[in-house]
Amino acid sequence: MKKCLATLAVLGLVFVSHAQTEDSIFIRRIADEILLNGKAYDDLRVLTKQIGGRLAGSPQMVKAEQWGLKVFQSLHPDKAWLQECMVPHWVRGGKDEATASFGKQKKSLDVLALGNSMGSGSNGVSGKVVEVKTFQELEAKKDQLKGKIVFYNYPFNQRFIHTFEAYGDAVGYRGAGASQAAKYGAVGAIVRSMSESTDNNPHTGALRYDSNYKMIPAVAVGLKDADWLDQQLKQGSVAITMKTYGHFLPDTIGHNVIAELKGSQFPNEYITIGGHLDSWDPAEGAHDDGTGVVQTIELLRVFKTLGYHPKHSIRFVLFANEENGTRGGQKYAQEATANKERHIFALESDEGGFTPRGFSITGTAEQFQKLKGWQSLLCPYGGCETENGGGGSDIGYLNREQKTAVAGYMPDSQRYFDLHHARNDVFEAVNKRELELGAVNMAALIYLVDKYGL
Amino acid sequence: MKKCLATLAVLGLVFVSHAQTEDSIFIRRIADEILLNGKAYDDLRVLTKQIGGRLAGSPQMVKAEQWGLKVFQSLHPDKAWLQECMVPHWVRGGKDEATASFGKQKKSLDVLALGNSMGSGSNGVSGKVVEVKTFQELEAKKDQLKGKIVFYNYPFNQRFIHTFEAYGDAVGYRGAGASQAAKYGAVGAIVRSMSESTDNNPHTGALRYDSNYKMIPAVAVGLKDADWLDQQLKQGSVAITMKTYGHFLPDTIGHNVIAELKGSQFPNEYITIGGHLDSWDPAEGAHDDGTGVVQTIELLRVFKTLGYHPKHSIRFVLFANEENGTRGGQKYAQEATANKERHIFALESDEGGFTPRGFSITGTAEQFQKLKGWQSLLCPYGGCETENGGGGSDIGYLNREQKTAVAGYMPDSQRYFDLHHARNDVFEAVNKRELELGAVNMAALIYLVDKYGL
Repeated sequence: MKKCLATLAVLGLVFVSHAQTEDSIFIRRIADEILLNGKAYDDLRVLTKQIGGRLAGSPQMVKAEQWGLKVFQSLHPDKAWLQECMVPHWVRGGKDEATASFGKQKKSLDVLALGNSMGSGSNGVSGKVVEVKTFQELEAKKDQLKGKIVFYNYPFNQRFIHTFEAYGDAVGYRGAGASQAAKYGAVGAIVRSMSESTDNNPHTGALRYDSNYKMIPAVAVGLKDADWLDQQLKQGSVAITMKTYGHFLPDTIGHNVIAELKGSQFPNEYITIGGHLDSWDPAEGAHDDGTGVVQTIELLRVFKTLGYHPKHSIRFVLFANEENGTRGGQKYAQEATANKERHIFALESDEGGFTPRGFSITGTAEQFQKLKGWQSLLCPYGGCETENGGGGSDIGYLNREQKTAVAGYMPDSQRYFDLHHARNDVFEAVNKRELELGAVNMAALIYLVDKYGL
Repeated sequence: MKKCLATLAVLGLVFVSHAQTEDSIFIRRIADEILLNGKAYDDLRVLTKQIGGRLAGSPQMVKAEQWGLKVFQSLHPDKAWLQECMVPHWVRGGKDEATASFGKQKKSLDVLALGNSMGSGSNGVSGKVVEVKTFQELEAKKDQLKGKIVFYNYPFNQRFIHTFEAYGDAVGYRGAGASQAAKYGAVGAIVRSMSESTDNNPHTGALRYDSNYKMIPAVAVGLKDADWLDQQLKQGSVAITMKTYGHFLPDTIGHNVIAELKGSQFPNEYITIGGHLDSWDPAEGAHDDGTGVVQTIELLRVFKTLGYHPKHSIRFVLFANEENGTRGGQKYAQEATANKERHIFALESDEGGFTPRGFSITGTAEQFQKLKGWQSLLCPYGGCETENGGGGSDIGYLNREQKTAVAGYMPDSQRYFDLHHARNDVFEAVNKRELELGAVNMAALIYLVDKYGL
């Protein structure tokens, strides 16, 4: 019996080794196809340069949806369609401005109104500036805020190695700062940009008003201007006049753009891959999230080109409205559940198109271990790290609806917040091979999940 | 006895675990100091923007040496000095030009004379172009080359994941192409730039003439122009006139810039860390190798700031003349050996200042394993990979002289050959945190080698 087990073990090892070799050969084929014949970079050029910023509700959103459907159709999936969902329609409405007055001098600050914020209109709002570093400090100063403009100057904590942790640590001031200030009578809010860049570009992004308080205007300010303001306030009082024009138009029709490859063995078990098609208006939405969009398309292209017939049905989804509503992700998960589609796995690429580091998963301990077990197959292409806790704003709804295991593609994070939601998030900031290697890792992971389950 | 061994084993584990905790705490202190108070980025700004390109023999080389010594001295090492060595003194001598004539049309090509090449002078050289992809093809066409200009159009092989392998595969055409063409009577050589960028910047770099053949002019051409030329030659004949002005002035005095921390336990056992101070003339030498230089300086700064007293003597070396002679590296190794300094380890950073991947070592199998054993301590800072075979052009001489184990700091390689030896290798292409995380990994490795030996 012992001998028998030993023999089986050896056979098992041989089998595993054979399977691993087969897998590494197929992954090498994926890599060759993407690195030698990849279309992601050309697709990205069209999306960013010919369409540009494409916030939910904008004319560019419509163009981008039409473009996405056309590109999908050209790759001959089993199905491609638009999935309708209502989306919010916020518009910037004009050129955001802020002027600081100190003594007899004035200085123009580089600002962008926060997404979803209500504009001051052309009369602007004015007030003396009260700087706070934290919400605790805001509470301590709550009696001094009436008629003032609150300046949240909470910097990224440089000790975090993964910059998304610094973002998570700071972003509450962008999201909730305006309403917290309004609660104590402030007339406007200025937020230090969610960035650690060395330039002065302001970074927009969504805020959420608390309906209990007045919806005061709110802007993000560039880091150099934030530091200047901080220094100036140490020397004396500063007043600021802000003019912003943001407002909502009625909700409008948007779409998730979807392609599908039908599964040969488990047609009603789904794997979803996606990025989001919308992007903030001041830039081209290259890394956020043009790269996730074109990587998703590239996965369909490579599977079709290699003649790969998946066991499970695979969905390629360009989600609508991630930036200021996630209505696309909600809609997709609701319909999936209503249609009794069982989603076994979903992967989102929405952390930029930088050089690969690996994947981060929200799932069971077993699922984590299974992913980690594939790491040696991905590591030759840069995907050497497996983390816990990842996913994506859009696919998060599948996890909530169906407990679907969800993962986020994890590129290197150091450069992301230099350009996230800022005017320098443009095509030129994307490196062709980094983008392609991301697609290689994503395609390899999907192949493994499809082959072995999760 | 068994019990005793078990107890010892447990104690051993406890000891190892305690040591690992101690190490990870100290490495965290290194990281905090560099990420919160780092000076590498500011140093790089001065080196690139105030000094600029600093080829051996140039006035900027002298400035850079003086600057390096001053910065070292300001950090109060036990010693800091200039180590003299004679360096070659090649100058570009003018503006490199190439004009292609086809039918009745002309097109100007973006070219840079290769380093060490002899110029044509203002009369230029002209000839019909013969394109070859490889040296084999050159041999096959050897009877057609008299009076011609050979165009080596060997692209980077995109299948290589680590781009230095693609460089290694292609760089022979830059190094030896001119002489191989001259052997068969060609009057000039044009080499497809050693790059895979999406722009048209030409990339210079050293050639080596074979003294058996005529030293014909040679230039690198941008990739878009190379592709254009390739296409044009499919349609008909193309003649090119090249004008270059490169020549050598007499060898001159250069210096390695060196700082030292004296070892407390093994003062005559040395660890050397370095980058090279020289850089090609068309750019600022930011990633090649300004980043290696300022990381080397940063390591001295962090050890001094944390009050770290090394067991071994540590040398911080800014090497002279890596680009077209490696005279600095040779001199350093010769003097080390002549002075009976035993070098146990040397580390060079000369693959750019991009986000960390890990280290690559040339040493024994045991040394590789020891390095790999430390990987888990470096991985939180990005250094998750350990490879075989690395080092650096300058420290390679220590390996030859003393069999010193040598390692190369290994940043991500995808962006490097977009700017290597090209005019876009400028300060703005360096990300502050990527640069700093490189220094964190390097300092951590040196701390471990110093503490545990190698």
